[in-house]
Amino acid sequence: MEMWLKEMQIEGAAMTYKVKETLVRKKTQYQDLAIVDTDVFGRMLVLDGIVQTTIKDEFVYHEMITHIPLFTHPNPKKVLVVGGGDGGAIREILKHPSVEKAVLCEIDGDVIEECKKYLPEISCALDDPRCEIFVGDGIQYVKEHKNEFDVIIVDSTDPFSIAEGLFGGNFYKDIYNALTEDGIFVAQTETPFYLPETVKKVFNDARNIFPVTKLFMAAIPTYPGGYWSFTIGSKKYDPTQVDTTKIPELDTKYYTPEIHKACFVLPKYIQELVK
Amino acid sequence: MEMWLKEMQIEGAAMTYKVKETLVRKKTQYQDLAIVDTDVFGRMLVLDGIVQTTIKDEFVYHEMITHIPLFTHPNPKKVLVVGGGDGGAIREILKHPSVEKAVLCEIDGDVIEECKKYLPEISCALDDPRCEIFVGDGIQYVKEHKNEFDVIIVDSTDPFSIAEGLFGGNFYKDIYNALTEDGIFVAQTETPFYLPETVKKVFNDARNIFPVTKLFMAAIPTYPGGYWSFTIGSKKYDPTQVDTTKIPELDTKYYTPEIHKACFVLPKYIQELVK
Amino acid sequence: MEMWLKEMQIEGAAMTYKVKETLVRKKTQYQDLAIVDTDVFGRMLVLDGIVQTTIKDEFVYHEMITHIPLFTHPNPKKVLVVGGGDGGAIREILKHPSVEKAVLCEIDGDVIEECKKYLPEISCALDDPRCEIFVGDGIQYVKEHKNEFDVIIVDSTDPFSIAEGLFGGNFYKDIYNALTEDGIFVAQTETPFYLPETVKKVFNDARNIFPVTKLFMAAIPTYPGGYWSFTIGSKKYDPTQVDTTKIPELDTKYYTPEIHKACFVLPKYIQELVK
Amino acid sequence: MEMWLKEMQIEGAAMTYKVKETLVRKKTQYQDLAIVDTDVFGRMLVLDGIVQTTIKDEFVYHEMITHIPLFTHPNPKKVLVVGGGDGGAIREILKHPSVEKAVLCEIDGDVIEECKKYLPEISCALDDPRCEIFVGDGIQYVKEHKNEFDVIIVDSTDPFSIAEGLFGGNFYKDIYNALTEDGIFVAQTETPFYLPETVKKVFNDARNIFPVTKLFMAAIPTYPGGYWSFTIGSKKYDPTQVDTTKIPELDTKYYTPEIHKACFVLPKYIQELVK
Repeated sequence: MEMWLKEMQIEGAAMTYKVKETLVRKKTQYQDLAIVDTDVFGRMLVLDGIVQTTIKDEFVYHEMITHIPLFTHPNPKKVLVVGGGDGGAIREILKHPSVEKAVLCEIDGDVIEECKKYLPEISCALDDPRCEIFVGDGIQYVKEHKNEFDVIIVDSTDPFSIAEGLFGGNFYKDIYNALTEDGIFVAQTETPFYLPETVKKVFNDARNIFPVTKLFMAAIPTYPGGYWSFTIGSKKYDPTQVDTTKIPELDTKYYTPEIHKACFVLPKYIQELVK
Repeated sequence: MEMWLKEMQIEGAAMTYKVKETLVRKKTQYQDLAIVDTDVFGRMLVLDGIVQTTIKDEFVYHEMITHIPLFTHPNPKKVLVVGGGDGGAIREILKHPSVEKAVLCEIDGDVIEECKKYLPEISCALDDPRCEIFVGDGIQYVKEHKNEFDVIIVDSTDPFSIAEGLFGGNFYKDIYNALTEDGIFVAQTETPFYLPETVKKVFNDARNIFPVTKLFMAAIPTYPGGYWSFTIGSKKYDPTQVDTTKIPELDTKYYTPEIHKACFVLPKYIQELVK
Repeated sequence: MEMWLKEMQIEGAAMTYKVKETLVRKKTQYQDLAIVDTDVFGRMLVLDGIVQTTIKDEFVYHEMITHIPLFTHPNPKKVLVVGGGDGGAIREILKHPSVEKAVLCEIDGDVIEECKKYLPEISCALDDPRCEIFVGDGIQYVKEHKNEFDVIIVDSTDPFSIAEGLFGGNFYKDIYNALTEDGIFVAQTETPFYLPETVKKVFNDARNIFPVTKLFMAAIPTYPGGYWSFTIGSKKYDPTQVDTTKIPELDTKYYTPEIHKACFVLPKYIQELVK
Repeated sequence: MEMWLKEMQIEGAAMTYKVKETLVRKKTQYQDLAIVDTDVFGRMLVLDGIVQTTIKDEFVYHEMITHIPLFTHPNPKKVLVVGGGDGGAIREILKHPSVEKAVLCEIDGDVIEECKKYLPEISCALDDPRCEIFVGDGIQYVKEHKNEFDVIIVDSTDPFSIAEGLFGGNFYKDIYNALTEDGIFVAQTETPFYLPETVKKVFNDARNIFPVTKLFMAAIPTYPGGYWSFTIGSKKYDPTQVDTTKIPELDTKYYTPEIHKACFVLPKYIQELVK
């Protein structure tokens, strides 16, 4: 049977994936959740029709959204992930021995449950004793915590979704306050190729709040355009000035100490968005 | 009318583009040639069903396949492009004032004619007096020229096509001989994500012939996986050791002197292919 | 190159046809017009994205919309086709020796021109001296002619298009008046499977005006649901009471005298729409 | 999530259905079995990628493959269905009060089980005490029964599948022998539009064996071409000579006594296949 998942990446360009099996599909309280098994990318988490993560290429996103801030901070002990219910970010965070606690604040408990069941390669660390799971609204959670986290990672769906409130200045102010005095914030901030204005706006929002703000890129095959931006906002440390010779060996497939620097070198058309 | 171009990027994953207009479609002596106008990427050259280049993202490929070798060589005067009938590489090459002659050796004259007609933004430099066009077999052409070119660029279709002979050791030996004593060779060498073995083999073939061999990457939205490899083989100069402070300002949208270095920094899974 | 025409037959079910060549595509004054050549159905006329007629299966529609009324009327001399710019209905009408004049009233002159150019198998009779072409509004044309035509055929696009005014009671009254005292009207009236309410409404509108009103069906592969309805309204003759033994042999591929009767025998679910 | 089932109806023309849910998908001993829920046709049984039956249009096929032979035979008591694991034919057969026993001989027990579970509207009569289910090879079953059935219905998948042996003269001879002396055989025999040669061959195979052989048609939206042929072979009774005034009222949505006759009236291009 030829069953195809169709993702309209942008009006007029759609990616289609041959599907072997639909493992789960349900309307959760917040979104249309599915986990499907595909020929090319293995199992995929799909929220509201958008591919979030796949067994075959998840490593790029999860390594880059975590190791860049965690190796920028000299001693991250307490880390918060807003969103990220698949657990991939938590898995990478807990590779850092300094981390004592990694809090996952995911609004949709079904994402966590289904990923635990069907994507164990990604969600495996959610049962780690250092991981604390809080099912609830990230905006509220961040508001209620002050001066507490060394690193806050916003691992959300797109801004035109339930995650809308996780993009923009108001939320970033609360994040600033929830961070310790040398804390670091990072968020996935969409594709500069298809959505340059979004990248620009979000970056400027962050820059108005954080003394150090940088954009870095990673090549993710299943994300529209294949090249994804992340915005990092830092109170003190500059991620591009890290002494990479001191970064310890980590079990990764994308991240390397050299990539830590190179990912901040932007193609000219992206550079111009964040000038 | 909903007309969609479907490109099977790999068995089980297809990209589809909404098409506004088919400007030309013909069987040439060598291949199925089409130029179509799409909603998202503007006009596209499609050969044997594979998207070769588009108005919207062609700059990435054409800048990276040319400026990396041309800024590695201190004084490139004579440059050969094998393939590249769309003229994009020639356009970038002729931005270098040192270049006295840029030869285009394209086997399929129809590609040149149709791109001149329908893709003037890309083919515009084919009429430059410094450009010499030779319609014929690149393998033969390279065999017949010795010690002549400072830079040879292999801007071909995929290895599973009429371009098969443009990949691999035999051809690279002839290229080596066609280069001057400090000459540099570069080729597009496919996607490490989908075709790791191809990247590995081609890179090793080049490494067996050239004293300096490196892989570099560029993020090209319309290419499968979105992240494309290029192999550079050099008799003398190391492209990663270029003094980028001396690179003059050029009118580009992707390439920058900083990208010149950063593009050689490979994600770990790609690094391991070329160890 | 894999180029596919996608026709959304109904929200959630789309037919896709592999396209070899796009012969013409233009925005006319009224609609998006295309003629494409497909692997399976040969050349197709596509208006506003909807397949209107194809070389391979056009015979069904054109034979049935014409021979049913023309063999019901004992001596049709003057026939009007509203719409039908491809010329297929005219071609069939002129197979009837009694016909002295067949008027084509098509609003979109481009349809006529392009079909003459690219669909000669269908449009061939448009140059017949008995055919008179009038490019203009069918509603207006019908209003301005009284007691003139023996048969009026409404060969239009769907009611959710520029053809909207060609469906419904107001237009049918004018048709009634434009017919001679024993005149017959026929129209294509959509798919009872997907659009039962449309069939029902249109049929009732006709029944309120014509003494004899009947629905007949034909199996047309490229039309949604594959089974198409036609409504016939007649002032005097009952199409189901024709003495089929007197129908002369005609060069057809679908219509036969036996089909003339059988096509009025409706499956129960369709019968119930027109009770 | 946009999930689409793609059925290649013939090379170059594919029907696609938006899928809400995949209820079951498994490799059985014989085929790839799926039951999916679609937006337009409700639940569908799909075998080896081919749509077999859907909640929305199954009535056409199941009524026509059963009531034509059962109302042709004056007193059918024992009926065999070869294939038909979904139970739709059995459901219709058991509407005939004369029937004492309806045997279902389906090779793939999984089809029966899954249809019982997910398609109760179709499979509902499989639990009727008059229905006897035999899971096994229809060819063998028919060989082993002589002079036993009043009606045998071959409700199989396409001839280019595991059902290959259920088409053609050898099997029809065994069917002839398994029928009582006034028995009637019917089979689904594909689309005359796309596969005229198949229809012709199968019909001729039947005609070589049965004194009375006829083709009849039904309009089935989800079958390729939308218009499906059935071949009936009869030892004694002519299905076109039935006294339809004596056919009792039955709860149907497609079949009527008038349709019983009209379905044998063939369009000319189909008539010519069975001359």
